[in-house]
Amino acid sequence: MRVLLPDTPEFRALEVPGVSFAFFREDHVPQGEADGAVLWLIPAQTRAELLSRPGLKWVLTLTAGIEHVASQVPEGVALYNAHGLHDRAVAVHTLAGMLTAARGLHLFRDRQREGRWQSTFDLGTLDGQRVAIWGHGHIGRILEDLLRPLGAAVTGIRSRTPVEERDAVLAAADWVVLLLPSTPETRGIVNAEVLARLKPGAWLSNQGRGNLLNTDALLAALDNGHLSGAVLDVTDPEPLPPGHPLWERPNVLITPHVASSTRDLVERGAAYTGQFLTDLTAGQEPEGRVEAGQLY
Amino acid sequence: MRVLLPDTPEFRALEVPGVSFAFFREDHVPQGEADGAVLWLIPAQTRAELLSRPGLKWVLTLTAGIEHVASQVPEGVALYNAHGLHDRAVAVHTLAGMLTAARGLHLFRDRQREGRWQSTFDLGTLDGQRVAIWGHGHIGRILEDLLRPLGAAVTGIRSRTPVEERDAVLAAADWVVLLLPSTPETRGIVNAEVLARLKPGAWLSNQGRGNLLNTDALLAALDNGHLSGAVLDVTDPEPLPPGHPLWERPNVLITPHVASSTRDLVERGAAYTGQFLTDLTAGQEPEGRVEAGQLY
Repeated sequence: MRVLLPDTPEFRALEVPGVSFAFFREDHVPQGEADGAVLWLIPAQTRAELLSRPGLKWVLTLTAGIEHVASQVPEGVALYNAHGLHDRAVAVHTLAGMLTAARGLHLFRDRQREGRWQSTFDLGTLDGQRVAIWGHGHIGRILEDLLRPLGAAVTGIRSRTPVEERDAVLAAADWVVLLLPSTPETRGIVNAEVLARLKPGAWLSNQGRGNLLNTDALLAALDNGHLSGAVLDVTDPEPLPPGHPLWERPNVLITPHVASSTRDLVERGAAYTGQFLTDLTAGQEPEGRVEAGQLY
Repeated sequence: MRVLLPDTPEFRALEVPGVSFAFFREDHVPQGEADGAVLWLIPAQTRAELLSRPGLKWVLTLTAGIEHVASQVPEGVALYNAHGLHDRAVAVHTLAGMLTAARGLHLFRDRQREGRWQSTFDLGTLDGQRVAIWGHGHIGRILEDLLRPLGAAVTGIRSRTPVEERDAVLAAADWVVLLLPSTPETRGIVNAEVLARLKPGAWLSNQGRGNLLNTDALLAALDNGHLSGAVLDVTDPEPLPPGHPLWERPNVLITPHVASSTRDLVERGAAYTGQFLTDLTAGQEPEGRVEAGQLY
């Protein structure tokens, strides 16, 4: 089996019996046939070149989301994602943002930059806080396990949750955490109408995809004081351009789409790939198969 | 029983059968006899006046630490502290600082102020991190329970821990969390020698008292790169004056002694006082009795 891998030392160190490797970079795609390709950190053009290799039977994207690749995968080629590589870091990142907001650490950071020792009592914990996790899959379940010891009461919202039930959960929540994938159904799902239904003073965290949330509606809900604040790892537009009004809001906490990043991510990605190939060559179905028509 | 209370609406709302109240402010101490006094948020001079009331039998300080009051309490007067009121918020605040550092949220906040969307992979979780909790009492046990689901391995250091064992724990720790009280034995205990024994790249969190840690030694350990960073809710000097070098360090996260603060703290303090008085009038020993000679 010939497999195309990202050209990093971690992937070059892989050895799997019965598998030969060729390595691609943004500016170099090995020619010839390939049975499979492992996609990561590449622009759409390079991806398209990889996906047009003759003989391609499967593609593993080392991302959790697949919306950037699903439409490019040729018919008959099996697609796998790698949510297991990212879920826990995203849950921890989400929790970190919630605790930062609750303890005012973002505001104290601003005061630190001004050299000001200024206390406040307007701080909280997560005890007794109601948290709605909208998009309650792998990440949501991990997050729920992390929130429980902190005294938060979690309710999950799934795509099959009836709208009235969903709206009741949203209206009662002190925190709404978006972990939805980006699909035609979820794009812009959190609009002005939905934001208006949230509990006054609620916090919103978007760790899913930027286009779930209408940015103008969010700004309006922040500026009229309806929401206490927002924690965003994803934005629309993304990347957020210099001068965008979201940067200026003190009660908005922005991280640049790093929720799943860890300093050992490439190493873990290579190890994940090794396991995937070992399963495959042993005739076992690897984790993460994306069914035809599945959008996440 | 006549009891002196802080003059806030929350304390004025208290009713306990068999107890009459008088209320003090910073600039007004009721005269006459008093059986007990509940101390909070007052300068030393006002405290001294309260403690000189004739007939005083007990004092409840609604703080966790007692070093500011212990020496002022007249002989024969029972002293109670209120650690139960603060422990959980301090543990949550400590966790928030650790997660902020692990996920780089302090650095992303700095980039936000500059309007810069700039990613990094140098982020972590707490999975597999070794955490030494130095001063492993009520707060430390709560913190340990919060850290466990995050995959951290916690070791407690107590005053009875042999020095060699202590140093071995410190040398292995990715995080050292100081939760010690301030006593003659703990002042300056974390000096240059101790810092040099920490694992290269370790993080230090001081949530106990500022004078546990030698500030100059900390600055040196940060500047020579031995430590990755520090999370400080307490400092020496405190408050940290404008222009102090600690403010300028990007890998130092400073909060102004707010670890136990919550927006409902006065309310919870009044409720704690009500329970204390109910226990006392029922002939039950309330929580938090400080024994003679006990320093925390």
